[in-house]
Amino acid sequence: MIVVMKPGAKESDVQAIIQKVEKAGCAVHPIIGENRVVIGVVGDGQIIDRRQIGRMHGVESVMPITKPYKAASREFKPEDTVFDVGGVTIGGSDVVIMAGPCSIEGRSELLEMAHACKEGGAHILRGGAYKPRTSPYAFQGLGEEGLRYLAEAREQTGMPVITEVMDPALVELVCDYADILQIGTRNMQNYALLNAVGKSGHPVMLKRSMSGTTKEWLMAAEYILSHGNERVILCERGIRANETETRNTFDLSAIPVAKALSHLPVIADPSHAAGKWEFVDSLAKGAVAAGADGLMIEVHGTPEEAWSDGRQSLKPKRFSKMVKELRGIAQAVGRDIPDNSRLVPSLPKNGVNGHADPAIEILI
Amino acid sequence: MIVVMKPGAKESDVQAIIQKVEKAGCAVHPIIGENRVVIGVVGDGQIIDRRQIGRMHGVESVMPITKPYKAASREFKPEDTVFDVGGVTIGGSDVVIMAGPCSIEGRSELLEMAHACKEGGAHILRGGAYKPRTSPYAFQGLGEEGLRYLAEAREQTGMPVITEVMDPALVELVCDYADILQIGTRNMQNYALLNAVGKSGHPVMLKRSMSGTTKEWLMAAEYILSHGNERVILCERGIRANETETRNTFDLSAIPVAKALSHLPVIADPSHAAGKWEFVDSLAKGAVAAGADGLMIEVHGTPEEAWSDGRQSLKPKRFSKMVKELRGIAQAVGRDIPDNSRLVPSLPKNGVNGHADPAIEILI
Amino acid sequence: MIVVMKPGAKESDVQAIIQKVEKAGCAVHPIIGENRVVIGVVGDGQIIDRRQIGRMHGVESVMPITKPYKAASREFKPEDTVFDVGGVTIGGSDVVIMAGPCSIEGRSELLEMAHACKEGGAHILRGGAYKPRTSPYAFQGLGEEGLRYLAEAREQTGMPVITEVMDPALVELVCDYADILQIGTRNMQNYALLNAVGKSGHPVMLKRSMSGTTKEWLMAAEYILSHGNERVILCERGIRANETETRNTFDLSAIPVAKALSHLPVIADPSHAAGKWEFVDSLAKGAVAAGADGLMIEVHGTPEEAWSDGRQSLKPKRFSKMVKELRGIAQAVGRDIPDNSRLVPSLPKNGVNGHADPAIEILI
Amino acid sequence: MIVVMKPGAKESDVQAIIQKVEKAGCAVHPIIGENRVVIGVVGDGQIIDRRQIGRMHGVESVMPITKPYKAASREFKPEDTVFDVGGVTIGGSDVVIMAGPCSIEGRSELLEMAHACKEGGAHILRGGAYKPRTSPYAFQGLGEEGLRYLAEAREQTGMPVITEVMDPALVELVCDYADILQIGTRNMQNYALLNAVGKSGHPVMLKRSMSGTTKEWLMAAEYILSHGNERVILCERGIRANETETRNTFDLSAIPVAKALSHLPVIADPSHAAGKWEFVDSLAKGAVAAGADGLMIEVHGTPEEAWSDGRQSLKPKRFSKMVKELRGIAQAVGRDIPDNSRLVPSLPKNGVNGHADPAIEILI
Repeated sequence: MIVVMKPGAKESDVQAIIQKVEKAGCAVHPIIGENRVVIGVVGDGQIIDRRQIGRMHGVESVMPITKPYKAASREFKPEDTVFDVGGVTIGGSDVVIMAGPCSIEGRSELLEMAHACKEGGAHILRGGAYKPRTSPYAFQGLGEEGLRYLAEAREQTGMPVITEVMDPALVELVCDYADILQIGTRNMQNYALLNAVGKSGHPVMLKRSMSGTTKEWLMAAEYILSHGNERVILCERGIRANETETRNTFDLSAIPVAKALSHLPVIADPSHAAGKWEFVDSLAKGAVAAGADGLMIEVHGTPEEAWSDGRQSLKPKRFSKMVKELRGIAQAVGRDIPDNSRLVPSLPKNGVNGHADPAIEILI
Repeated sequence: MIVVMKPGAKESDVQAIIQKVEKAGCAVHPIIGENRVVIGVVGDGQIIDRRQIGRMHGVESVMPITKPYKAASREFKPEDTVFDVGGVTIGGSDVVIMAGPCSIEGRSELLEMAHACKEGGAHILRGGAYKPRTSPYAFQGLGEEGLRYLAEAREQTGMPVITEVMDPALVELVCDYADILQIGTRNMQNYALLNAVGKSGHPVMLKRSMSGTTKEWLMAAEYILSHGNERVILCERGIRANETETRNTFDLSAIPVAKALSHLPVIADPSHAAGKWEFVDSLAKGAVAAGADGLMIEVHGTPEEAWSDGRQSLKPKRFSKMVKELRGIAQAVGRDIPDNSRLVPSLPKNGVNGHADPAIEILI
Repeated sequence: MIVVMKPGAKESDVQAIIQKVEKAGCAVHPIIGENRVVIGVVGDGQIIDRRQIGRMHGVESVMPITKPYKAASREFKPEDTVFDVGGVTIGGSDVVIMAGPCSIEGRSELLEMAHACKEGGAHILRGGAYKPRTSPYAFQGLGEEGLRYLAEAREQTGMPVITEVMDPALVELVCDYADILQIGTRNMQNYALLNAVGKSGHPVMLKRSMSGTTKEWLMAAEYILSHGNERVILCERGIRANETETRNTFDLSAIPVAKALSHLPVIADPSHAAGKWEFVDSLAKGAVAAGADGLMIEVHGTPEEAWSDGRQSLKPKRFSKMVKELRGIAQAVGRDIPDNSRLVPSLPKNGVNGHADPAIEILI
Repeated sequence: MIVVMKPGAKESDVQAIIQKVEKAGCAVHPIIGENRVVIGVVGDGQIIDRRQIGRMHGVESVMPITKPYKAASREFKPEDTVFDVGGVTIGGSDVVIMAGPCSIEGRSELLEMAHACKEGGAHILRGGAYKPRTSPYAFQGLGEEGLRYLAEAREQTGMPVITEVMDPALVELVCDYADILQIGTRNMQNYALLNAVGKSGHPVMLKRSMSGTTKEWLMAAEYILSHGNERVILCERGIRANETETRNTFDLSAIPVAKALSHLPVIADPSHAAGKWEFVDSLAKGAVAAGADGLMIEVHGTPEEAWSDGRQSLKPKRFSKMVKELRGIAQAVGRDIPDNSRLVPSLPKNGVNGHADPAIEILI
């Protein structure tokens, strides 16, 4: 930590800081300039609160040197984090495609979309059972019923599934059905939820908040990692800025920056960034070219009837075309969008992870 | 809703929209311009999803007319919401002062600060028992122990107390001790939490998120109000912008804007906005002059030792001086910062709201 | 300057920096931490380019210590800058009111408004002769004709006048008519213009840019001051943020922050910040309470007919009422909005500052 | 234009608007909803000022339908604008690479870099002779001397040259030397300058401002186009947002959005967006994948000695490697980065565009 004193700060002010710092077991290196004193503090940054020092007499500002995140940092773990989820490798040389509808609207709709996404080249199925809606009067998701449909879609297609969880009390339930837990942009700093998914040990995809910095994003990941849960995926989904033609402003540089600062896989969600299907293709291509480890794409058969986010959803045909074109981009940057035929459907069975599955029962 | 067609949109595109809208029971008013068609839709905006229409052929954009919040709006309830919390009237002509330390650091520290704040003119005591910290390694609050100290401080001073709750599972517990539940800026769109505090029926102070618009803020309030919980206070605490000299950028206009759009009381938190104690005074004065119904101020006896937010905390003496000066501002805008001597301490009793209170037991 | 080396930076990288710094005549103070080296550099920051050092091997970041502005800083000149413009004292204990129409629309309209503003309590008349319009097809101002009307209004009311200049080539002409040159928000970093008004020696009011930090604002002032022109007024007029209910987001903290960092007077323009007349009053009161040295208010007799910015203009009656109420606020913070009757009209004369004035000639 | 009346607006308010609109020759379509009246206005939006209507009694808001830009819009000109500058085609299927140093630091330095950039694959040479510097004390550029070096570099390499102009009074001079005039981000709304470059008839590259929306960017282009100057290139260079790891936040979606709304070529400047050389490569690749018509890249032989922007400059070797890799990306999206060997140096001649060139004279 570097403590910058005000010009004309008193010697006694400087001494007070030195005493406080040394008392905490840190070493002090004062630098006497012509107009002011700057104090270098060496030691564990966690011991001394930067804002406490900032409140002391004669102090102009306090600048941190050490990054506040540890387990999430490349300094801590230089090699890329790579892990497998249901047969799909995330964080390696493959570019992973997650696709599916925004909301799960019904069993047949989801199954149809799951098959269409797999045919289009997807590796992981997305679908919302619990929806964070700005309005309390809007459709809030099918809940556990949706989770069951999701599990059934996994069995029929072999694709692992990802879905959002918003309530710490529901983490256990969602873990029973989903392969990856999604933390939405509004909950990036919902620490009760981060602690709950951290403790679950389940793979987690953490979306960046609308106005969060990379540092805050990695600090949120640190909450999850601090519970020993190392399977964390970062997802850039657009930030708040001045532009109104798109729903959010896709921050392309978040991809190389997060990958430089952290070992965690970074994927992009061009659908929420664009907010309009016609721009999804360009953002998806840009993201892969810039080094994204994967994409999350909203796909819907009849977007003009979608219960949410129809405006930004691709139809399956367009999705399929886009994935083909993305392969060329991936190869140009030395990567691959692998064929998804190795994802083999399992036979429908009675009960998913121990839960009786009424959706399947109806089939019998 | 107004549907703006692209120049050159086909007649069949227009007819498709008219059919969809009429099928939903809404009336249609097409306006044929020289270059394009605009369709006015009259009816209940909740029936038709604006983004579905936006996805249809030939549509350029869809503009909402009706505000998405209802219970929170002035149109719904023209007169100001005024309510009493533990003898303090919020939302009326009085300007209410909430003050106290950022974190509850211990029993004696809190009690000392509570008395100092009351002497300085405060009406409501603040203090964090559960702290939302950017780092998982930082002090996370004393938890229920802190809540007990808070309740004891209320008994000794007569001031009702406010504290943050972050986990839906803890809402019931916090209600047992606190008079007002605080929803922090990071949780403004944590819908599981909003639903929980809405159902609790307890008074709630809802902080605006760092990048939230007034509309989103009122939509978040709508979540709470939709459960029939009408005692909601809005709190502006600064937004994210480009300035780095302050911790956040205090959005003064949020006060008159929120009061124009909504009937809910609006208070200001200049401490978190400024992030530096030396600017708190100016922001507090500006907020009261602009019509704030109250202020929330961080006060600490030894800010340079504070476990959190010491940089922005006022010492009791300065707080007291500021409240005196604020009285002049309040009177210049036809309001009053009332004397707090009517808040009468209750005798310490065994158990707060039915909970045994070990802090008190120790005293016996 | 503090140079933070990457963890694991080589000793030769550190030596290369030390050599470069010492070669430039600066002193070096290396601090050896457990994981990394930090190098304190003492000397004139102008000598070494921070970004050059940042590009050297092994460097993680470079942090400036010295503020980049000098003449604008309080460190350079601790006492407030106070100066007189046409009988009005700016920067002292008085709060100065500048008022008038957005655009000068015609001679009689301007003169009528000038008298109305003076009756309402204004000290300085504003009015745009050259208008920065987003559209090339919108009304661009009356140009020199407008300047002549402005000069005539000054003679009839005794109020000095302020008007915007956008082209360096017109600075001399505008100086002939106006008492204060206004630099608009879009031109805060138009260095050719800043140099031109700096050289003119005329008083200048510098609006903050829509996304500019206080540091950039003071650096822009530094351009003007560096020519020896010390009569600079800073004007906060709202920044870009996420809110859409107001035209811009008024940054109240800019007032105390700019006054802490600089000795220059700081005024506020609540009209452009709000963009809606109904919120101007609240922002104006907040600004004065927070320490603004003055206000700039748009006033128009028939705002619904205004050629620009009618939406945010107050009618004279409301302006007059607001100034009366502002007096109470000013007094509550130990200041005064002085009576403007000491501003005495001069007799209409043939020619203003040497220019023949056709508007007057018509009268003869 | 759509005029939304407040709920409960009076019939007389509605009639006043209808009269005003009809008086201006526009047609009116009132839509009577349950709670409020909405008025559709058909006719030329330039006739009636939206903000005037917004100021009338009973009006809640006024929403524009017609885009404010005309000549810049795709509606006005559906086909892409393609033009040739010195043998380089801009806006067609080729992706054009502009490269060179931030500042022109000397004759030999520039010539060396020009040759290195050409060898690396560049088509157009950039270099700043007039530098917009935040500090008045920083290096401001070599001025006309720099322009002469630039012209010489063009002759030696055959590459056309681009350079920034900041003062309307210097536009003519810069046109004598440069093939493309650059308008910097700080001057996007410097209307005096936009008018001057518009009148010049010279090709112009218009950088987006740091907080400008696409609409404002196209309105700025409209200023230039309104003078009949159709050779305008748009350049996205990063906006202001919350992230601090990069200098600006590169807005990838600006590329497809601007190309959807306008027929003008759109290029990207990843150097200024990133602010750090290590991220330039990723952003450049993302931009080309997303459909950019070109790139502007800062290249410097010894960035750690650069007089400006060394932190973000690539060394020639890395630039060359990047261009090779970009070719693969361009091909994956059906485009090409053409070989630049067709750009043939001209023999050094006495005088460039009629100006005597001392730099050349020295050679004789």
